[in-house]
Amino acid sequence: MTNYPAPLRRLIEAFLVLPGIGRRTAERFAFSLMQGAPSEASELATAINEIHRTLTTCEWCGQFSESARCNICSDSRRDQQLLCVVADSRDIVPMEQTGQYRGLYYVLGGLLDPIEGITPERLRFESLKTRLQQGVTEVILALNATLDGDTTASYIAKILKPTVRVTRLGRGLPTGSRLEYADEATLTSALSNRQEV
Amino acid sequence: MTNYPAPLRRLIEAFLVLPGIGRRTAERFAFSLMQGAPSEASELATAINEIHRTLTTCEWCGQFSESARCNICSDSRRDQQLLCVVADSRDIVPMEQTGQYRGLYYVLGGLLDPIEGITPERLRFESLKTRLQQGVTEVILALNATLDGDTTASYIAKILKPTVRVTRLGRGLPTGSRLEYADEATLTSALSNRQEV
Repeated sequence: MTNYPAPLRRLIEAFLVLPGIGRRTAERFAFSLMQGAPSEASELATAINEIHRTLTTCEWCGQFSESARCNICSDSRRDQQLLCVVADSRDIVPMEQTGQYRGLYYVLGGLLDPIEGITPERLRFESLKTRLQQGVTEVILALNATLDGDTTASYIAKILKPTVRVTRLGRGLPTGSRLEYADEATLTSALSNRQEV
Repeated sequence: MTNYPAPLRRLIEAFLVLPGIGRRTAERFAFSLMQGAPSEASELATAINEIHRTLTTCEWCGQFSESARCNICSDSRRDQQLLCVVADSRDIVPMEQTGQYRGLYYVLGGLLDPIEGITPERLRFESLKTRLQQGVTEVILALNATLDGDTTASYIAKILKPTVRVTRLGRGLPTGSRLEYADEATLTSALSNRQEV
């Protein structure tokens, strides 16, 4: 690093804030931008500058939005009685891609993880209770099929039931998978969730 | 992507210009910057904007520099007779880290690769010849130990000899390696480059 000119060094340092990016990759990024067209670099810089200026979080679901209420929450054609709880804004994308869900969303902001210090106060549980008062009849938990996801699901079920119906995504073999590669835990839930043919 | 607000979508697209970055990682970057402190994002944007404005290439060696002649080329304590030829600016870093090389550098801008269309005209061979007229007595080729590196080394030796002494980095077992894991090509060069004990 010592021999890099200062502006290059500053850019490499700045890239280190990105998740999973170490010094080597940061160097590759910096050199690539320097070797590429100045317009590409300035478009990236502008796009980065824009997000904090133009984006806010939706007052209803908590996902990033250009307006106080996001496109999904303000879409009156969607089912206002169904509320899908996700850990992160990004989890909304795969749900929407199924094309099967027509309700609304609620972003928790993470999953409970006592070891990492993610206790209930750190997540958006309080405003979830308030949100339910807008005519929600079923809460669908679309959380990771992991220990943290299951812990969070149990916690939500405990604080919301019996006010509202609480369901979670089904467990079993992923479509396209082969039985010989299925792990025990997946097979166990596939067995207990077996369905009539 | 469809549901992301436009500024987020633009940022994700802009990140795709970085080498090796696909849509998923670009999304992670964008969300991370959005969730992080606005100051981090604006520092990154500023650093990106600065490089093309403040950096140029050194008129002697071709590496990125804040001035017309880089720190290394303008350092009169360095040996002006030795010229180390590297493919890329970044290759100067590991050479400097050895602390053993006190000569100057010359950046080719790549390696010959006829299949990819990297022919001699695409690299900085012409100005290399001019550069040699400044009292250089030995050219040390510090190129990748690959087919492209070897092709380029042979080409340079052909066009420069016998005007100047041309050497290349030694080949053999990397320090710390175990014989049982050495590949045939490495062992072959280690054998032909064997040294008196």
